Amino acid sequence: MLRTATRQDLPAVLALLADEEKVVDPASVVVGAAYEKAFADITGDPRNEILVLVDGDTVVGCLQATYIPGLGKHGAERALIEAVRIRPDRRSGGLGRELMERTAERARQRGCALVQLTSGKHRADAHRFYTSLGFAASHEGFKLAL
Amino acid sequence: MLRTATRQDLPAVLALLADEEKVVDPASVVVGAAYEKAFADITGDPRNEILVLVDGDTVVGCLQATYIPGLGKHGAERALIEAVRIRPDRRSGGLGRELMERTAERARQRGCALVQLTSGKHRADAHRFYTSLGFAASHEGFKLAL
Repeated sequence: MLRTATRQDLPAVLALLADEEKVVDPASVVVGAAYEKAFADITGDPRNEILVLVDGDTVVGCLQATYIPGLGKHGAERALIEAVRIRPDRRSGGLGRELMERTAERARQRGCALVQLTSGKHRADAHRFYTSLGFAASHEGFKLAL
Repeated sequence: MLRTATRQDLPAVLALLADEEKVVDPASVVVGAAYEKAFADITGDPRNEILVLVDGDTVVGCLQATYIPGLGKHGAERALIEAVRIRPDRRSGGLGRELMERTAERARQRGCALVQLTSGKHRADAHRFYTSLGFAASHEGFKLAL
């Protein structure tokens, strides 16, 4: 099931973000003040949300969606996806596809014209995955640390 | 000078967005209801703004900045830049650099950890420009039309 994250999900989400390669026990995660504030900022913003894919009581995947109003596309929003994660011990079973397809459907229902994301250049597996979902690798993604 | 766009700037901004190759007279732009709404959505959102670079009474450049809260980077926002335009008859004079540098400084002062953007794969000149500003082409940019 895909749903918006609640404060109770925050340790599990931070556990997914903390290590992409091995499972981190959510019970071991200390939620610092900066993350409390960031979570409140995200969930309190009508154009941002953290979505979690859950299997029973377990958060098996997450991402952040930002809905961006714009002057292109006849004023339709676009959805930017960041921080896509699937629990390391639950990969290769279609959960990533389920997470992304449900998120795209949610964006479509909201009226978004486009879903966009960037993925690190070296992540060939991720690129194949996004391409298989119908995404086009049409752009270069630039970042500038401040 | 870089400043946030007001409703009076909207025809000039839409003129820049309408045609990247030739100058469109802002006085010829009819602002439809969808664009009125989109502009109000953007300027009414504390995490979105349209910035214009102005020379006297002329809008010579524009972009949209979206400030995205996140759980990475110790809770710092990141700035996403979209719809960067310089008036076709005012290019190659450093205005693009001024627009981007002032925007990055604005994001830094706001507390953003990162500026990010994507640029179409075929736009080699734009890629050289962003690289010259210190951006790294570290990511693939994926888009899915809905």
